[in-house]
Amino acid sequence: MEISLAEIAKAVDGEVRGDADKTIRGAAPFENAGCDDITYASGSKFLKKIDKTGAGAVIVPQNFLSHACSKGTVIVKNPQVAFVKTLEIFYPASAPESSINPNACIGKNFKFGKDVSIGPFVVIGDNVTLGDRVTLQPNTVIGDNVVMGNDVRVWPNVTILDRCRIGDRVTIHAGTVIGSDGFGFAPDGEKYVKIPHTGIVRIDDDVEIGAGNTIDRATFGETWIKTGVKTDNLVHIAHNVTVGENTVLVAQVGISGSVTIGKHGVLAGQAGVSGHLTIGDNVTVGPQAGLVKSVPDGETVSGSPEMPHRLWLRVYRILPKLPEIKKKLAELEKKVNALR
Amino acid sequence: MEISLAEIAKAVDGEVRGDADKTIRGAAPFENAGCDDITYASGSKFLKKIDKTGAGAVIVPQNFLSHACSKGTVIVKNPQVAFVKTLEIFYPASAPESSINPNACIGKNFKFGKDVSIGPFVVIGDNVTLGDRVTLQPNTVIGDNVVMGNDVRVWPNVTILDRCRIGDRVTIHAGTVIGSDGFGFAPDGEKYVKIPHTGIVRIDDDVEIGAGNTIDRATFGETWIKTGVKTDNLVHIAHNVTVGENTVLVAQVGISGSVTIGKHGVLAGQAGVSGHLTIGDNVTVGPQAGLVKSVPDGETVSGSPEMPHRLWLRVYRILPKLPEIKKKLAELEKKVNALR
Amino acid sequence: MEISLAEIAKAVDGEVRGDADKTIRGAAPFENAGCDDITYASGSKFLKKIDKTGAGAVIVPQNFLSHACSKGTVIVKNPQVAFVKTLEIFYPASAPESSINPNACIGKNFKFGKDVSIGPFVVIGDNVTLGDRVTLQPNTVIGDNVVMGNDVRVWPNVTILDRCRIGDRVTIHAGTVIGSDGFGFAPDGEKYVKIPHTGIVRIDDDVEIGAGNTIDRATFGETWIKTGVKTDNLVHIAHNVTVGENTVLVAQVGISGSVTIGKHGVLAGQAGVSGHLTIGDNVTVGPQAGLVKSVPDGETVSGSPEMPHRLWLRVYRILPKLPEIKKKLAELEKKVNALR
Repeated sequence: MEISLAEIAKAVDGEVRGDADKTIRGAAPFENAGCDDITYASGSKFLKKIDKTGAGAVIVPQNFLSHACSKGTVIVKNPQVAFVKTLEIFYPASAPESSINPNACIGKNFKFGKDVSIGPFVVIGDNVTLGDRVTLQPNTVIGDNVVMGNDVRVWPNVTILDRCRIGDRVTIHAGTVIGSDGFGFAPDGEKYVKIPHTGIVRIDDDVEIGAGNTIDRATFGETWIKTGVKTDNLVHIAHNVTVGENTVLVAQVGISGSVTIGKHGVLAGQAGVSGHLTIGDNVTVGPQAGLVKSVPDGETVSGSPEMPHRLWLRVYRILPKLPEIKKKLAELEKKVNALR
Repeated sequence: MEISLAEIAKAVDGEVRGDADKTIRGAAPFENAGCDDITYASGSKFLKKIDKTGAGAVIVPQNFLSHACSKGTVIVKNPQVAFVKTLEIFYPASAPESSINPNACIGKNFKFGKDVSIGPFVVIGDNVTLGDRVTLQPNTVIGDNVVMGNDVRVWPNVTILDRCRIGDRVTIHAGTVIGSDGFGFAPDGEKYVKIPHTGIVRIDDDVEIGAGNTIDRATFGETWIKTGVKTDNLVHIAHNVTVGENTVLVAQVGISGSVTIGKHGVLAGQAGVSGHLTIGDNVTVGPQAGLVKSVPDGETVSGSPEMPHRLWLRVYRILPKLPEIKKKLAELEKKVNALR
Repeated sequence: MEISLAEIAKAVDGEVRGDADKTIRGAAPFENAGCDDITYASGSKFLKKIDKTGAGAVIVPQNFLSHACSKGTVIVKNPQVAFVKTLEIFYPASAPESSINPNACIGKNFKFGKDVSIGPFVVIGDNVTLGDRVTLQPNTVIGDNVVMGNDVRVWPNVTILDRCRIGDRVTIHAGTVIGSDGFGFAPDGEKYVKIPHTGIVRIDDDVEIGAGNTIDRATFGETWIKTGVKTDNLVHIAHNVTVGENTVLVAQVGISGSVTIGKHGVLAGQAGVSGHLTIGDNVTVGPQAGLVKSVPDGETVSGSPEMPHRLWLRVYRILPKLPEIKKKLAELEKKVNALR
């Protein structure tokens, strides 16, 4: 593929400085880009060494205007986002053939929009509705009464169970389970009696769910993943959880039942949240943190159990000094006793 | 669906106070129930505000007898368990059509009881035996020589490998793997030599295994999940582990090889247990706890590594004060040195 | 099956002491072996009580030569490895029928070596190449342009996505996902824009990947699992990670994006590694450790955040004494104030 720098600038809503006719043949990272490639530099770390990249052109931020650069540049508001758009030009997402494979097994009363693609050995229950351009990759199982919007992409070996509702432009990666029963049992003396889970999982627009996730249906009502949420791999979300708009759950995070998480949050890898807590908007949770109390809006917390991140930074620097502290205390005690 | 309060009382082995002929049309949580719904109240928190629920009737405990309540009540021993039974009346578990889908692929010498339901693209190896009313949902794979009892329910995309034995009334949620090889390798200087795993996984009656679990077969003998065990999602159970009767493993718990866990235990989310330990009966393990020593019967432990829970509560309250403690020690040292 | 002790000795490159003609009918662990079984004893713990095993013969190390033992023995360099070889004699890995099941769905331009075994409901994309004796178990999905070497064994319900490359003698356990998109999103003010992942996962020879793993493809280039790596169950490996030769990742370990791990390492269960770190060769990481800094060659680290293991051992023994330390400090302060 060949495209001029001017055409790239147009696609990313940027402005060319240098040779607008220069031919670009690929997009690559700063360190590996060749003379026909375009790359990007956003932070000062990369902008300072901009002449070190082998790239033929660089996407740069607006504040770079004053600097000198021998290469062609495209000036944009957000270089990383512009670079992503450039990547989509050179590596367009493969559009699967729109067809329903004869080896799929489809239930009664199936409704679907245009250009759907359903792979072999996909199983679709009764009364399922899919929007336009939905892709169900091989060996995926969709339960009864599931509804999906447009442009949903489901990877192989996914399970989406009865009555779950999926919005527009949702991606669900391989091996994930949506709508399994919540973990609820009533203790009856010796044994546990299973609590029926009559609710659903609702996933709003522009959500991306990673591989190997498990998202349980609500006991009553909805487990609700709101617009723009992104989950990494092996994330567990229990029954009746709400995850707010554009919140990010990194790999192996576990959210217990009936937790509410606000919008624009980040829960780092392997963090865990105890049941029934409320995590506010714009909250950041450190890796492996264990939340046992609710967290107000805007806080950054770390540790297990959690504390404010700044305090935790001081605490964890002291931890390795505990042997020294213990020793010093013993010496001081000795000194004091000698004084008396 | 419509049913009288008297009929509900009969089904849950309870006694009506109030209008026994009242028509009930659903079961719902305390906060959301409407005037045709029944709900339940067990703890004093809910019993105190019993008139706040919009429910038309409430299931209450025996000690509620003396209280006044304007609504119809059903008096029972265990309100939560009675409510679960009521839920089962209004939301009966969907009984799948008993049939063997022509798109299933079934091996030699298959034996099965009455009313089995086998979905499309299920694969069953040779010499498999299923009891009555077993449900194998789509895209599940069953290895050779697997034996299952009655009323087993296997959700989609599950893998159960050769020779594993499943008891009666067992539920296995979507995406789970039963009988993968244990993680055993003999170091041979530079490399590792794989240790064959000749054992099986044995799952006793009334067990429920969550979604996305991995339960490894034994090197020799059995990995043994005893009667009534419940596991949440993404739980890992290694080779040769024994989990005792009615023990609960919450989401993302990991149990290393050859661990023995007693009965009636609870391991909270993301807890981990090191290899070859013995965890006694009635043990409670806190979330994210890391067990490196065996735990006697009846203990409650927390922390990583673990300590008695009460001690851990004191320790973790002191942790955020470490900077203060360090400062105080330095000041004290100064004072003492000035005294000398 | 029956085989003489002499034949076993020959197979494991060992030397018989005692009755070389003795008939052996099985291989079993030290505690459970019967009089027709062979077992092994390597550490002094077992060698001291060698007469306690019911086994008819014992595989022992070379330094056992001087000891007396009434049983037949086979003297070898590495008893555990020799015992594994003996196990393979009595419990040979089932060689699946070499055939392509008519219920598999295979894409265009499929190339494959001799004796491949492809199960029912396997889906293979276009331009896939498999070596000799590759086994793809039921309901596994292989994307376009995947290349596998010889003697690869893929268990059921596995997903291996486009362009991934698998070496020789690789085993991938059930439910694992190879080649899902990395978790990369460019923040665009309110929302996140997905970063296309154009790279692959490359898995070298003699690797074993556990059940329920998720290994993401690189943004550019390769996520690279080098020769001899072994991963346990539910391990997460993010985009652009490199795992060095013969390194072992225990269950539920999580490796963030762009981490490089050296060779001959061990990461114990539930450990996590933050993004972009470099872990050297021969590094050991404790269970539940949380790595936030790079680790040089040969180090052993524990804790979250990590510290040298020996220091951590001292720290964690002091943690339960914190209440005592706090109390002692308060008393000392009182004493000092009384002195002034």
